[in-house]
Amino acid sequence: MSAPLDPTKLKITTVGSRKTYPPNEELTFGKIMTDHMLVAEWDSETGWGTPEIKPYADFQMDPASYVFHYAFCCFEGQKAFVGEDDQVRIFRPDKNMARLNKSTSRIALPTVDPDVGVKLMREFVKIEKDVIPKGRGMSLYLRPTVIANNASLGVGVPTKALFYIIASPVGSYKASGPIRLKATDDAVRSWPGGTGDTKLGANYAPCVVPQQQAAKEGFMQNLWLFNGYLTEVGMMNFFLVFLNKETGKKEFTTAPLDGLILEGVTRMSILELARERLDPTEWEITERKVHITELIERSKKNEVLEAFGAGTAAIVSPVQEVCYHSESVVLPTAVDGGETTKLVRKWIQDIQYGVDVHPFAEVVN
Amino acid sequence: MSAPLDPTKLKITTVGSRKTYPPNEELTFGKIMTDHMLVAEWDSETGWGTPEIKPYADFQMDPASYVFHYAFCCFEGQKAFVGEDDQVRIFRPDKNMARLNKSTSRIALPTVDPDVGVKLMREFVKIEKDVIPKGRGMSLYLRPTVIANNASLGVGVPTKALFYIIASPVGSYKASGPIRLKATDDAVRSWPGGTGDTKLGANYAPCVVPQQQAAKEGFMQNLWLFNGYLTEVGMMNFFLVFLNKETGKKEFTTAPLDGLILEGVTRMSILELARERLDPTEWEITERKVHITELIERSKKNEVLEAFGAGTAAIVSPVQEVCYHSESVVLPTAVDGGETTKLVRKWIQDIQYGVDVHPFAEVVN
Repeated sequence: MSAPLDPTKLKITTVGSRKTYPPNEELTFGKIMTDHMLVAEWDSETGWGTPEIKPYADFQMDPASYVFHYAFCCFEGQKAFVGEDDQVRIFRPDKNMARLNKSTSRIALPTVDPDVGVKLMREFVKIEKDVIPKGRGMSLYLRPTVIANNASLGVGVPTKALFYIIASPVGSYKASGPIRLKATDDAVRSWPGGTGDTKLGANYAPCVVPQQQAAKEGFMQNLWLFNGYLTEVGMMNFFLVFLNKETGKKEFTTAPLDGLILEGVTRMSILELARERLDPTEWEITERKVHITELIERSKKNEVLEAFGAGTAAIVSPVQEVCYHSESVVLPTAVDGGETTKLVRKWIQDIQYGVDVHPFAEVVN
Repeated sequence: MSAPLDPTKLKITTVGSRKTYPPNEELTFGKIMTDHMLVAEWDSETGWGTPEIKPYADFQMDPASYVFHYAFCCFEGQKAFVGEDDQVRIFRPDKNMARLNKSTSRIALPTVDPDVGVKLMREFVKIEKDVIPKGRGMSLYLRPTVIANNASLGVGVPTKALFYIIASPVGSYKASGPIRLKATDDAVRSWPGGTGDTKLGANYAPCVVPQQQAAKEGFMQNLWLFNGYLTEVGMMNFFLVFLNKETGKKEFTTAPLDGLILEGVTRMSILELARERLDPTEWEITERKVHITELIERSKKNEVLEAFGAGTAAIVSPVQEVCYHSESVVLPTAVDGGETTKLVRKWIQDIQYGVDVHPFAEVVN
């Protein structure tokens, strides 16, 4: 009999006194964790143990734990916000929990019932709500994670795992300004039949050396190409605004979900809002493959208006320049991004901070 | 000033009394660990700390550790043997340490000076030499591992790491007999510009679900295809013996080191020995790409004599059948493998157990 993960059994132990948190302007992404964590243990024979919210503390890990040897790990990125109305909101947590299961399933880790996962996350956010930094751009970054912790050197299906959520108060990414990208084709982030559409740890470590290489050449991130097609930027989805000079119509486009890119919750939300809110007589909203040569050629015709990365951490990250070997595509981007980039950021932030009361942002009571 | 890893500083703390080890016939691969472990801590600012051999114990790991989120982990497989002369030997440890550095470099983890790594491994083997199971096929499996343990949710270059070696007494893989393979093209193990030629944890977790799928269909392992070409089998390199009926010559072949396959130490050793020992008037030794259609077509002409996987854990693992969609290649394999498979196993084992005194096997005194 394998026990389900049961949120009604949640056991809560809080710290006596909280740590001191730095002021908003000193918050660095993901460096400081809150006082608590949520943890549930899983065993292939007995199922899920009692979920617990307890003081943040080290895990005791056998050196032979699967996660140390075979990268049985995956995660989600999620945020809680204090709105202008002082209500606490989380952004589409069901989408993150669904994606977490897509990731765990890909590497034979246990799934987490999405409703249960969201319930537990809400309870955790309630415990930490007093340490969510306030102000537009500020949030509590939440990191649901699943790792395998059975101890064995033979590779196979994990028999023990931890589902846990930790949290870090974070500031705005906005300050970093528009970014320069190196279009990268010597290293490949994902491929057909691979795992690029899941949020496995395995997709991240291999990207750091190419990023270091790009940084040495003066770029902030890689624009990952696959057979010349634009896929992702750094760890974000990639959006473009084209102008079709013949028709006068603008195109708002991003790569399709063909297995090579992460199904970003921010990406999905931006597309949904754009389809609702951009005037269809002026705009075409597409999900399609864009080749680097299309970007370069259309840039020469001044048909590339804007480009930005999109993800939970930054919402939108305006792109200033894309370099591909000796070719350079320079975008007329303001510090905060172009007109559409800024509009998209406003849409999402207005929802996150309760200015625009919208079903994407769920109040945590 | 960043300190090097210094084997002269090695600190040794042994257990008071050893655990009870199961008899040889009950040993399962990698399930039981020895009483000690070797650990060295690294910090990007201060360099390497004091290497220590100490009682095997859990690591204290911050839940935000890089290895849990971004798969900053890599490892090696290595073995120590008690020879027929009662001497303890390890097999080409310099090759494993060189490959460990290839892996760490690929994901921005610190390198371990190969000479130092080998020295530390030798010291560790000396401490554990009394628990190496004796007999042909028996060994102490050694697992050098590097993981990043800095605690931060922002992806970047690791700033803290652990290099450690743990060990497990293991029996012979021989008992499992010849294996049936599913030639897999819906999931892809590696890609040009990827990491398939390194021993990253990231290469392993994604292979487990395809292996489960193969198992459900009655196969023991996947034969990984890339664009139809044979790359690896399960977690092993793949060797074939062809007969050219026109010339009467036999070909001993394996996939080339084109970035898609692991540079196996067993693979390398088998090739070197085959080039020295197989009669060149009868044999051609090649490293080349073999397409699944070549395998199928030549099988129909009875030109496929043998196939086996090769790796540290199994040495050689004879293949009985390869299935590709509705096509099946059946190999006339005895339980222990065909003539060449058995010969190769004997070469390697004779070296490992000191029957053939050879520079590949280094005595640990």
